[in-house]
Amino acid sequence: MTTLHRLPAGAWPDLPGQRVVFGADAPLRLDCGAELGSFPIAFQTYGTLNKERSNAILACHALTGDQFVTGPHPLTGRSGWWQSLVGPGLPIDTRRYFVIGINVLGGCMGTIGPREINPASGKPWGLDFPMITVADMVRAQALVLDYLGIEQLFCVTGGSMGGMQALQWAASYPARVFASVPIAASAKHSAQNIAFHEVGRQAIMADPEWCGGDYLAQGRNPSRGLSVARMAAHITYLSEAALHRKFGRTLQDRDRVTYGFDADFQVESYLRHQGSIFVDRFDANSYLYITRAMDYFDLVAEHGGVLANAFRDTPVRFCLVSFTSDWLFPTAESRAIVRALNAVAANVSFVEIPSDKGHDAFLLEEPEFFATLGGFLDGCAEHRGLAPLSEPA
Amino acid sequence: MTTLHRLPAGAWPDLPGQRVVFGADAPLRLDCGAELGSFPIAFQTYGTLNKERSNAILACHALTGDQFVTGPHPLTGRSGWWQSLVGPGLPIDTRRYFVIGINVLGGCMGTIGPREINPASGKPWGLDFPMITVADMVRAQALVLDYLGIEQLFCVTGGSMGGMQALQWAASYPARVFASVPIAASAKHSAQNIAFHEVGRQAIMADPEWCGGDYLAQGRNPSRGLSVARMAAHITYLSEAALHRKFGRTLQDRDRVTYGFDADFQVESYLRHQGSIFVDRFDANSYLYITRAMDYFDLVAEHGGVLANAFRDTPVRFCLVSFTSDWLFPTAESRAIVRALNAVAANVSFVEIPSDKGHDAFLLEEPEFFATLGGFLDGCAEHRGLAPLSEPA
Repeated sequence: MTTLHRLPAGAWPDLPGQRVVFGADAPLRLDCGAELGSFPIAFQTYGTLNKERSNAILACHALTGDQFVTGPHPLTGRSGWWQSLVGPGLPIDTRRYFVIGINVLGGCMGTIGPREINPASGKPWGLDFPMITVADMVRAQALVLDYLGIEQLFCVTGGSMGGMQALQWAASYPARVFASVPIAASAKHSAQNIAFHEVGRQAIMADPEWCGGDYLAQGRNPSRGLSVARMAAHITYLSEAALHRKFGRTLQDRDRVTYGFDADFQVESYLRHQGSIFVDRFDANSYLYITRAMDYFDLVAEHGGVLANAFRDTPVRFCLVSFTSDWLFPTAESRAIVRALNAVAANVSFVEIPSDKGHDAFLLEEPEFFATLGGFLDGCAEHRGLAPLSEPA
Repeated sequence: MTTLHRLPAGAWPDLPGQRVVFGADAPLRLDCGAELGSFPIAFQTYGTLNKERSNAILACHALTGDQFVTGPHPLTGRSGWWQSLVGPGLPIDTRRYFVIGINVLGGCMGTIGPREINPASGKPWGLDFPMITVADMVRAQALVLDYLGIEQLFCVTGGSMGGMQALQWAASYPARVFASVPIAASAKHSAQNIAFHEVGRQAIMADPEWCGGDYLAQGRNPSRGLSVARMAAHITYLSEAALHRKFGRTLQDRDRVTYGFDADFQVESYLRHQGSIFVDRFDANSYLYITRAMDYFDLVAEHGGVLANAFRDTPVRFCLVSFTSDWLFPTAESRAIVRALNAVAANVSFVEIPSDKGHDAFLLEEPEFFATLGGFLDGCAEHRGLAPLSEPA
């Protein structure tokens, strides 16, 4: 299996999907003030765009996701990140909807980011890459929609940072969004979440192989630091209950503890495995940039301290989803968004899904979650006048 | 200010308190099977032992604490870890009680641990140091009590790993404990807590300066890895509410974000500071050993899967304390202990203290916590026949 870190920096491997260069004529102006000219965006589509171009769903990925929403990932061979939710007969039914996955700005799966080649130097951007924000990610996604000839998304959705994008889309381009489903998200990143991100960044930067961000040019890789960052983050994606249920204090392939620093406990072995497989598919500098974009996300501050101002007179139909055991993006964050939407009399529904699976629940098969999302989309499709499926699969 | 990492390995700096060599005649047999002969234990006392030797309180420290319970720490100059709780007129009143602080086995403040000299090699122990357990720590503390001529502790108490020791004391030496107050503790370390510890250990071991544990002999110091470990752990000691209240999204000495990786947010600056001051006072290998001892702690498994068996016919009076916002050692852990004690009709009281300060609340001034602990000790003192304070201070 080809793994990403064996690819040379900036190379576009033989991946399915499309990679289109934007910004050659009109550079993309970023929130930080920098401009990007002639930059690639990689995306992948599933299903068929109807002739009215009215059935497109943008599935926005989270921190470490990419454009490969479903199906075997061409580099890792593992399932796409929303495999359980997107496909024929699933809540986001690809027989009815045209689903788009776009690798975010700053990512490492073909869209411009710190591992791509900086034309000014002929070397990977590294830390010379400009800082990007969630609003920048959404601006870039709008270019892809223009390219595809899609004036309005039927729906924009995603979990975690994907949910931030779903909110940002509704705030930035209300006329281009029929429905928005932010899942396990928040309108501003919390202090605790910034703190966890900072630990991950410090772990990466503490690795001497990071080389001040210049590791690709020097043929090195801060895989140990990135692995530690992933391990710390991975704990936050689960819940104490899920960890207890899955692992408890069960030992790993042994009858008793070894009185040493081997992975005596299954939970240790699991975490080490999560760290080690992550570094094969993800770029350390992308991890820095994308965590920072999440930290900076604050729709409240951007609207004068009043979140409702982001959605005044919005035509968008919203459905907010949270999970009871998600302590990274707890239900209170979704409730704050619902209150702001209610304050402007927006069309909003909200469901808190009972689950012990923590933040990761948005990636997993949770029947009530599936029923909520499927039902909301069905209702919106009817309002939007989308043709029903002619017959069940 | 002298800082610990500038001290040569194994040196006993000019610290107050005592450092006594034990095990010369009868080696201490550890749970792992190894034996320790001629090893130092460093301890500190506060107040006066009465002539009946019946007023001693052992204040057991947590992961990164030491024998300096109160007063300015002789190395760091900062307050002792239980400064708010131990002293004249405080809940653990040094006018009435004789308070003992003992640096745990595996520690780095004078008691034998991986930074001490291994007589077999003439070099610091490093990873040749045998693994220690909470039960081993308590065995070593019992030697100190023998040395001080104290047959029975009036009380053993502590928070977090200190609470584990308070439980272990009651289980191992019930006749030597009049009262036990385990605070913010558990009878077995949870999967989530093992996971966080493993992240910290991996951060240390990923630092090339760690040198396979041999850094002291090589004149190096894995301070970056240890700092990352401390930062990750520090988040778990607080609560989301406390982080929000203390920091929120407030920027650090700036009006707007810098679109870079500086510590834009106060919470980042605070965490970095916590990491950097920690490495000046703590040994990385000690961090590995002590976290492992906590991971191994499982009074349930050690008693045939039935915690109540640890306390059958116990004469000890127990008071369990937990804090509402402590997600590292949540109230459910204390309740499980209370249930086991109730099952053997032990004398037990239990209070869950409302606090938004997270796990660290056990170190802080929380009025209801203070009233609970002070009241429990007063009641026990009466039963034990300790003389009341003749007059208020």
